[in-house]
Amino acid sequence: MATKSLERLIDEFNRLPGIGRKSAARLAFHILEMRDEQVEDFIKALREAKEVIKRCPKCGDFCEKDLCDICSDELRDKTTICVVEDSRDIVSFEKMGKYKGLYHVLGGKIAPLNGVTPDRLNIKSLLERVTDDEIQEVILALNPDLEGETTSLYLTKLLKPFGIKVTKIASGIPMGGNIEFADSATISRALDGRQEV
Amino acid sequence: MATKSLERLIDEFNRLPGIGRKSAARLAFHILEMRDEQVEDFIKALREAKEVIKRCPKCGDFCEKDLCDICSDELRDKTTICVVEDSRDIVSFEKMGKYKGLYHVLGGKIAPLNGVTPDRLNIKSLLERVTDDEIQEVILALNPDLEGETTSLYLTKLLKPFGIKVTKIASGIPMGGNIEFADSATISRALDGRQEV
Repeated sequence: MATKSLERLIDEFNRLPGIGRKSAARLAFHILEMRDEQVEDFIKALREAKEVIKRCPKCGDFCEKDLCDICSDELRDKTTICVVEDSRDIVSFEKMGKYKGLYHVLGGKIAPLNGVTPDRLNIKSLLERVTDDEIQEVILALNPDLEGETTSLYLTKLLKPFGIKVTKIASGIPMGGNIEFADSATISRALDGRQEV
Repeated sequence: MATKSLERLIDEFNRLPGIGRKSAARLAFHILEMRDEQVEDFIKALREAKEVIKRCPKCGDFCEKDLCDICSDELRDKTTICVVEDSRDIVSFEKMGKYKGLYHVLGGKIAPLNGVTPDRLNIKSLLERVTDDEIQEVILALNPDLEGETTSLYLTKLLKPFGIKVTKIASGIPMGGNIEFADSATISRALDGRQEV
């Protein structure tokens, strides 16, 4: 139907997450209609992001400097590490604004069926941080699905011997959510996690 | 929140049609997680599409050669031109498969409030085609909204003096649609366009 170069561009867009075939075609056509300078700006932003943005050697989050803004912030509480799956989770935590400790980005969760074994995650550097620093608590904040739970269990077993407090964020009915429509696993979690008021 | 280069990349994605702030962030993070070669392939596809794909000098559709595949196809009916807003509409028409004539891409529709005056559309080249070629019918296939109707009216007035047949595609209840939920303008059109069975 379309020309070969257009097909290739549609394929590339189609490879991005959440972009179906139809959206990919829409985006590709839009690129063709953009001015050359605009496309060059887009390409520059893509390249620059890839060149400039590295992983923080301490927490594994994205950063442009030697250490990320959070790790190098003197005002953050250096006794607590919150372990998350990826950088996007840090954005959500920071948006909430209440957490003042440090983070550690695992880069995924254990999923043997998808080839993600523990050695492919940033677990070694987490254990190093726990040994080296003045850490008192590690908060596990992985998504509460099968792989997330497995990973939390695995990390708990590794971290406990260091004699630090290991906690896991609560799982239950979301705020504004509806018990009527909640699944059994969530209601069960909410019940188990009940607290005296 | 995020680094400067990341913000810039998110902004660039956000500029594309149908990509909100959240999707843009998701895409930008995905780019950071992609291998360098994958990003270079994406950039190559963007650049190549911009370099290689031109407008067909005859119909205004995208093409990689001197003339587009449809204009250079000897088997197409050269007596009929179907006027569409943009190249995507040609894709839809070709998918239907029943139309065997030629196309003409206007590149938009008349919308004075958005600064789209008739001289910014491919109208001049349409009039040239009507004079030069053995055209017998021009089918107007613009989206049936206010601007589309205005543009159809404008083109009809320009084309009539050439002594050719000017037609407009039918507008009415879509197949599988529901009269109960159709708006008055659509029902009115369906009624006006009724045909003996």
